[in-house]
Amino acid sequence: MKIGFQPIGLIHTPFTELENMPIQPAGGAGVKGTVDVFEEYRAGLKDLDGFSHIILLYHFHHSRGFRPHVVPFMDSQPRGVFATRAPRRPNPIGLSVVRLNRIEDGVLHIENVDILDHTPLIDIKPYVPEFDTHSDVRTGWLELAKETVSQRKSDDRFKQDRE
Amino acid sequence: MKIGFQPIGLIHTPFTELENMPIQPAGGAGVKGTVDVFEEYRAGLKDLDGFSHIILLYHFHHSRGFRPHVVPFMDSQPRGVFATRAPRRPNPIGLSVVRLNRIEDGVLHIENVDILDHTPLIDIKPYVPEFDTHSDVRTGWLELAKETVSQRKSDDRFKQDRE
Repeated sequence: MKIGFQPIGLIHTPFTELENMPIQPAGGAGVKGTVDVFEEYRAGLKDLDGFSHIILLYHFHHSRGFRPHVVPFMDSQPRGVFATRAPRRPNPIGLSVVRLNRIEDGVLHIENVDILDHTPLIDIKPYVPEFDTHSDVRTGWLELAKETVSQRKSDDRFKQDRE
Repeated sequence: MKIGFQPIGLIHTPFTELENMPIQPAGGAGVKGTVDVFEEYRAGLKDLDGFSHIILLYHFHHSRGFRPHVVPFMDSQPRGVFATRAPRRPNPIGLSVVRLNRIEDGVLHIENVDILDHTPLIDIKPYVPEFDTHSDVRTGWLELAKETVSQRKSDDRFKQDRE
């Protein structure tokens, strides 16, 4: 069974190459971008400007195939793909929480962006701390690595693999 | 352009009807469920048990079509669909952060569940506060409504609509 999704817009960012991108919004602090929502979906943006942060779901459109284990940018050991945020996943969907600065004519002006230029947008959801924030959290192999995330950049490890 | 995704597992919960479900994990506090990851994807679960919370992306498989404005469960006024977490979206993908209690034989035992039984799983990502948690947040129309979310239940408003 296949589930079909349709891009609802395009994300524009300064990152035109897969290399040297921030690997999470934390590393993209202050980086600005825009989301161009296609005209037929713009009416759905009503009320969104009341939210300071939004969740973007998008298609990792350069990702092909997947392997169950990947060496994440933040580590030197292979980890299970579902224990990482790596793009080469069975269903290559990316998730980033970004700051929403304003909306003008169906264009969202966003900040703290770690997304490749021209990425197809799949969904926008309001970020709600009461739903999305949790305390008393353990983060496994990332415990040691995550302090350095804002300094790390991507490289080409997920680029050329096509299976 | 259509993007094709494949279910990678099934989510099992006590909620067999769309009515009277909690409408967010906050309302599903203590409710337990399981995620049965299909065999070909199980190797990807390595290292996931180090994480106390995980992000589930899933298919709102009962949702058909969408309208740009919806009256959310937590409100009495129509809101832009992207300013809500309602299931009838252009691409009907749900997102919940749940607690991961343990993994046994490819089955994830989860808690704080607000998901319908038999929901197709699309992706699992580790929940990492450094990536996913934000402060100084405004939440628009939800400011007033969200305090009551743990008491609210779903009804059938998203059930019968087929366009």
